[in-house]
Amino acid sequence: MQPPLNVAGIRIGVARAGIKYPDRRDLVVIEAVAGSQVAAVFTQNAFCAAPVTVAKRHLAVVAPRYLVINTGNANAGTGAQGLTDAEATCRALAGLAGCRPEEVLPYSTGVIGEPLPVERLVVGLPAALAALQPDGWTEAAHGIMTTDTRPKWASRRFTLKGRDVTVTGIAKGAGMICPNMATMLAFVATDALVDPATLQHVLHEAVAESFNAITVDGDTSTNDALTLLATGQSGATVPTQGEDYARFAETVREVCIDLAQAIIRDGEGATKFITVQVNGGQDIAECRQVAYTIAHSPLVKTAFFASDPNWGRILAAVGRAGLTDLDLERVAIHLDDVCIVRAGCRAPDYTEAQGQAVMARPDITIRVELGRGAAAARIWTTDFSFDYVRINAEYRT
Amino acid sequence: MQPPLNVAGIRIGVARAGIKYPDRRDLVVIEAVAGSQVAAVFTQNAFCAAPVTVAKRHLAVVAPRYLVINTGNANAGTGAQGLTDAEATCRALAGLAGCRPEEVLPYSTGVIGEPLPVERLVVGLPAALAALQPDGWTEAAHGIMTTDTRPKWASRRFTLKGRDVTVTGIAKGAGMICPNMATMLAFVATDALVDPATLQHVLHEAVAESFNAITVDGDTSTNDALTLLATGQSGATVPTQGEDYARFAETVREVCIDLAQAIIRDGEGATKFITVQVNGGQDIAECRQVAYTIAHSPLVKTAFFASDPNWGRILAAVGRAGLTDLDLERVAIHLDDVCIVRAGCRAPDYTEAQGQAVMARPDITIRVELGRGAAAARIWTTDFSFDYVRINAEYRT
Repeated sequence: MQPPLNVAGIRIGVARAGIKYPDRRDLVVIEAVAGSQVAAVFTQNAFCAAPVTVAKRHLAVVAPRYLVINTGNANAGTGAQGLTDAEATCRALAGLAGCRPEEVLPYSTGVIGEPLPVERLVVGLPAALAALQPDGWTEAAHGIMTTDTRPKWASRRFTLKGRDVTVTGIAKGAGMICPNMATMLAFVATDALVDPATLQHVLHEAVAESFNAITVDGDTSTNDALTLLATGQSGATVPTQGEDYARFAETVREVCIDLAQAIIRDGEGATKFITVQVNGGQDIAECRQVAYTIAHSPLVKTAFFASDPNWGRILAAVGRAGLTDLDLERVAIHLDDVCIVRAGCRAPDYTEAQGQAVMARPDITIRVELGRGAAAARIWTTDFSFDYVRINAEYRT
Repeated sequence: MQPPLNVAGIRIGVARAGIKYPDRRDLVVIEAVAGSQVAAVFTQNAFCAAPVTVAKRHLAVVAPRYLVINTGNANAGTGAQGLTDAEATCRALAGLAGCRPEEVLPYSTGVIGEPLPVERLVVGLPAALAALQPDGWTEAAHGIMTTDTRPKWASRRFTLKGRDVTVTGIAKGAGMICPNMATMLAFVATDALVDPATLQHVLHEAVAESFNAITVDGDTSTNDALTLLATGQSGATVPTQGEDYARFAETVREVCIDLAQAIIRDGEGATKFITVQVNGGQDIAECRQVAYTIAHSPLVKTAFFASDPNWGRILAAVGRAGLTDLDLERVAIHLDDVCIVRAGCRAPDYTEAQGQAVMARPDITIRVELGRGAAAARIWTTDFSFDYVRINAEYRT
């Protein structure tokens, strides 16, 4: 993996604040140069964590100069004290950095329902600030990890109006087999010059085909957050439409897809990377509905873990996805290049040996043809293994 | 467990037809005396199996005299040949028993997508018919098992207008942790005299609070079926309303709840029996929505497997259940008698020791108070264990 590219106008510092474990990188500060713009997407969970509430409040006031991220404690389910603690964190950093508290956005990930050890966090801030440097991305990718087994970053560079523009991002999250509690945090930055409305639009479009293609029905955790900073330091302006807009949007989307796929590949206990592609639907919504029904079936997931081409389980998932007037005669299902179901039945020329050959691969695409329209959707998921149960049964103990 | 009570007018025969394994009880015939009435509920899966399609057709013509059930093969995903095979089974039994083919209802459970070995099934029919006897319920409970580890039956007897009325049922199904492929079959019979419309109404009411309280969002398998026969042989007539109607309906419901709970207790790899009770909702639908979101969270399920009172996972599930304008300040969560969340936060007086004491129990109730209405719902589920993965990863191999 190529190291992440620096983004002009961004500096990052990492410290060990001992929030949950001694001597773990658990505190990250990201600094954006004055004048930077921001776009953000947060969890839809009604029980959103205190830092999410505070970040939204601050974003409504002013663009941020600093993001502060801690692991080891999610500051979620912590009520009024949680809000106080998140605000205290922002105030402390603002005092040290010489900015307004509203110019600081807090992010937390870790155990839910325990009070944030805000003193230890605050004591760690000077070290994080002292460590600020333009090439802190790799350190930061490590510093935001929880159950992740490896750091996740992605970078792209392209030329816009004769100037180099960079987009770099880091992410954490490893429980995305079923993401209802596995906090996903992602921080992406670019040195392009982008107005806030355009930046938010680009982010929403990118999320739909990346992080939201690994997340189910708004099954976000209490702390999920994705933040996109644009420093403008490249001097290249992104227009509100046209070819240059499209190239910028595509580049941000690519970085987000890279990060989202890295999360799936690091899925808890995952042994397989599964793409679910659903074509021929009446609209994107029903294609996603079918794709998610397949991707969330524990029976499909355990069959993939066993490398068992149990196509009946995939077919049953399509059947129960809730599509009205689904014509079975038009449904086909492929595993990679092998057609396993045609006209709603096992394909006449399908052999178990073909299915087993596909299932032996680490990367597999399930392709469903609904035969009732032109819409399509694609999502990514993993199998369901002994290790998934082990990791999640042992997480707190 | 008390042995099942015989139902006047019902005879049952079991045979070993070698459908998948030699010398396994895999073929059951249930005979209802002429004049019996029937009510039935089938899977909502768009890919319903051939026997389901045929049973619905036959029910539209005439009340059944015989039910024929095979294990070892689901006759699902088998297209036109599957329908031909199911019809052939009915014709063969009709020929032997001297009734119309439409008076026979077929049921199949087992592997999907393999052709039904209809010759072996037909060859086994004479032995099943020769074995017909009023006290065949226990044998039949064994004869319909697939991955079940124990037979499931339930009986009730009560007095109606001075006469004894019996309700007895058997069921199979063990994958109800996530029931999308684990066929649930249940056969209930009574010797009460009930008109078909009343019988269907009673069945629908009973299902809502029993089998549909362990089944998710129409996540039925391709073959799920529940059939209620009323032979009338007790001579006691069930009215269309009033106290006697209510007592009959309650008795059928009790039998169905017993059977549904037995399926959950035999859930694949289950180590805990979990009741999810949601109170204080605006309507039953939103209470069920919250209950199912909790019951289907792999993270909640693995925490229960680990006996870990990880209340944050339950709280996060409530939060992402999709209720609009949920007021966190009114939400409380209990594990049995222990309040773990109050006003959306960890209850001030809650201790980890209290939570662990509850989690050590084999039967646990999660009670959620939404504090926004008077509606309630209750469902049952299990935890998620290593064995669940093992069983479903190894099922076909």
